[in-house]
Amino acid sequence: MSSWKRHDLLDIQDLSVEEIETVLETAQSFKEVLGRDVKKVPALRGKTIATVFFEDSTRTRVSFEIAAKCLSADTLNVSVKGSSMSKGESVLDMAKNIEAMNADLLVVRHSCSGIPDILARHLKASVINAGDGCRAHPTQALLDLFTIREKLGKIKGLNVLIVGDILHSRVARSNIYGFIKLGAKVTICGPTTLMPMGIETLGVKVSHDLDEEIAHADVVMLLRIQTERQQEKFLPSMNEYARTFGVNRKRLEKAKKGVVIMHPGPTNRGIELSAEVADGEHSVILDQVNNGVAVRMAVLYLLLGTKDPVIGLKELKNL
Amino acid sequence: MSSWKRHDLLDIQDLSVEEIETVLETAQSFKEVLGRDVKKVPALRGKTIATVFFEDSTRTRVSFEIAAKCLSADTLNVSVKGSSMSKGESVLDMAKNIEAMNADLLVVRHSCSGIPDILARHLKASVINAGDGCRAHPTQALLDLFTIREKLGKIKGLNVLIVGDILHSRVARSNIYGFIKLGAKVTICGPTTLMPMGIETLGVKVSHDLDEEIAHADVVMLLRIQTERQQEKFLPSMNEYARTFGVNRKRLEKAKKGVVIMHPGPTNRGIELSAEVADGEHSVILDQVNNGVAVRMAVLYLLLGTKDPVIGLKELKNL
Amino acid sequence: MSSWKRHDLLDIQDLSVEEIETVLETAQSFKEVLGRDVKKVPALRGKTIATVFFEDSTRTRVSFEIAAKCLSADTLNVSVKGSSMSKGESVLDMAKNIEAMNADLLVVRHSCSGIPDILARHLKASVINAGDGCRAHPTQALLDLFTIREKLGKIKGLNVLIVGDILHSRVARSNIYGFIKLGAKVTICGPTTLMPMGIETLGVKVSHDLDEEIAHADVVMLLRIQTERQQEKFLPSMNEYARTFGVNRKRLEKAKKGVVIMHPGPTNRGIELSAEVADGEHSVILDQVNNGVAVRMAVLYLLLGTKDPVIGLKELKNL
Repeated sequence: MSSWKRHDLLDIQDLSVEEIETVLETAQSFKEVLGRDVKKVPALRGKTIATVFFEDSTRTRVSFEIAAKCLSADTLNVSVKGSSMSKGESVLDMAKNIEAMNADLLVVRHSCSGIPDILARHLKASVINAGDGCRAHPTQALLDLFTIREKLGKIKGLNVLIVGDILHSRVARSNIYGFIKLGAKVTICGPTTLMPMGIETLGVKVSHDLDEEIAHADVVMLLRIQTERQQEKFLPSMNEYARTFGVNRKRLEKAKKGVVIMHPGPTNRGIELSAEVADGEHSVILDQVNNGVAVRMAVLYLLLGTKDPVIGLKELKNL
Repeated sequence: MSSWKRHDLLDIQDLSVEEIETVLETAQSFKEVLGRDVKKVPALRGKTIATVFFEDSTRTRVSFEIAAKCLSADTLNVSVKGSSMSKGESVLDMAKNIEAMNADLLVVRHSCSGIPDILARHLKASVINAGDGCRAHPTQALLDLFTIREKLGKIKGLNVLIVGDILHSRVARSNIYGFIKLGAKVTICGPTTLMPMGIETLGVKVSHDLDEEIAHADVVMLLRIQTERQQEKFLPSMNEYARTFGVNRKRLEKAKKGVVIMHPGPTNRGIELSAEVADGEHSVILDQVNNGVAVRMAVLYLLLGTKDPVIGLKELKNL
Repeated sequence: MSSWKRHDLLDIQDLSVEEIETVLETAQSFKEVLGRDVKKVPALRGKTIATVFFEDSTRTRVSFEIAAKCLSADTLNVSVKGSSMSKGESVLDMAKNIEAMNADLLVVRHSCSGIPDILARHLKASVINAGDGCRAHPTQALLDLFTIREKLGKIKGLNVLIVGDILHSRVARSNIYGFIKLGAKVTICGPTTLMPMGIETLGVKVSHDLDEEIAHADVVMLLRIQTERQQEKFLPSMNEYARTFGVNRKRLEKAKKGVVIMHPGPTNRGIELSAEVADGEHSVILDQVNNGVAVRMAVLYLLLGTKDPVIGLKELKNL
């Protein structure tokens, strides 16, 4: 395992292949810990981890909170409804205050791209980007890579098909970077209105024909249609979208035998995929959620844990 | 103490008399733990308990949270305002996600009857019903039984009078089942509009005359009038209700000397009972709250704790 | 260190000079603990500390929560939006319920002056006033005293200038009492409309000329203008206020060389002080936040910790 020197996790794009491997390997060890009766190691005892969420997200917040608690860290939830932001305090001021209260790491979600980077530049505490605007969501990409490797044994050479609203999706963006770094071939597929201009320059193939593409895919990753944002009218209708880009049993029959169906959640059943597919044998949606805790433990541990090479992970697991 | 095999607690109706006795006995041991300077045992170290509340309830949520912490479990609060439910995720999807994040037990409150049962059927994690619709609230009934036995030494043969809005009350329903199971005689009393049709079939006596009934009661349990729901107009007026079914000092004089006054809280002083009665010598309202923590510790411990008969509760208390 | 007998902390006015010294000394020890890699001592293991906030305040709530966790206490957040207060429960009823659930200490914030005192009179659990109405905020004053002594080595004889909205400020009130008790000379300065009538009787000098006063001050404490309350129109305009009572670099040049600039936060940059001053070398604003955790640990420990003189703080730090 390589030695880890990074202080923040802002974007998967920043990570070297070796660093990604280190996260995935460390996560594998923690997944074993989570399989025990007592799911807890004292790795981060006496550390304080704050989730600072300027956007609602029960799932991501809870995943980080459980990860931190399984490492014996103290946790702190700051939700920025009902906080002093209503009193006009800036995001940076608030973050500096939380840091001044001895938080060692801030897990930040914000609807504006770049906020976690700004905080990381100004704080001594570590920062994890838990989703910023339409830009990045690196722990989601890491847990997706972990899940695929667990299911298919490798990433390199796989055909990965990402379907849906690429334009607004930080999940898509982080996954594209991650998959390409680890040697997968990525195709994105969705309505023209939901494709960012110039996305080909990232090295992905662009398609608008799901039936054509699904036949070649080893992995089909469906993105959430954000029904709550549809005031902007990117789509003629949800029905139309489901018909053209949703995956139901019939469409799934065109796929390879061992195809893996992923979704970052929460799913809109009947839109991105049918209930049958969501709960079917190809779906790894709940594995993604489950692996999320192990991957976030790995990231928290690598950012905050002992840098002493003598007390490595093997020893930790025996504590 | 009988061995406990149950995986969920959904309704007191499901429990055998022996199982109820086991809960009450276990709660008695935990009440002793709570009387110590260090109110903590390591019984559920490394377990994660999530409260998942789709309806506001500070009191019940806090009671379970304290119970879990006194057992050294990690706790997690999911309040479903400001969660992805606003993004259209189904209750079951959300619960499966929390389970996939390694939660061992979900404490669920929902305004629809039956939701905890549905979750229990689909989850491997344990489920405790912390109140569903107008149906059941089993830990409330258990803590009421515990409190009465603590105060009066027994349940069997007691005359229990339940007063008020039986129709909308999950507390009434769970208590009726519990009291009858343990051999008490139950009378319910309230306005006709707040009595469910056919309630006699449960084996209770129905009355509309509080002054008549209060004379025979060993226990008077007052139910909360949900003033926030009175758009539906079940009552001519609050004053009228208080006059006919409220307990004040004068009405209390008609009761037996050792009568016990209960209320599941929060009370509407001046409606269900006068402040004098609420704070008076017959009231055990705060005992109910206090015993709630011990009873919930017992339920959590029985559902999640070691099944090893060698490391029993006695040993646990000495840890 | 004197022995501590107090059961609640309601107002700094109640404390003797000796008691204040005890808090500051204890806080100094805890500040050392917070400088360690593992920021945790087992002093309050098995105790339950509830924050009960009837007014939003992320900063104060988080500061107490971290302080409690660093002492190994269990914590519990009760925010009274979305609680049974909406069901008409009184503040005292709710507090008695939390106490009945075995909470050992309640940290209370309420918009009405005197609520913490009422609770303290009726509860066996300890109560800390975390801000009540316009009256008192004793832990803020204590952390301000701690910070000044850390920066300037003493309190006695210092010229302290408090600037801004004295009328609505519990911070001002608690600080005035604290500074005068410890022998500082206090001048208050602000618009006439924001000065309470008869404030001179507390022993402070009243001024309306900041340029005159700033030249003599060792400490300048700027109070927050509560822009969200300005419906009441105490001020002609924010610009006017900033021009007359705001501290920018130019005005700061008139001050003594070693002047200390304080602000209880959250700051309105551009109103009470310029960004340059807030982030400049004289500002101790983040030190105040940082010291807040140590001071709150001290208060929690003194109120709840062992009274055994044998197991003193020195021993505790070596646990």
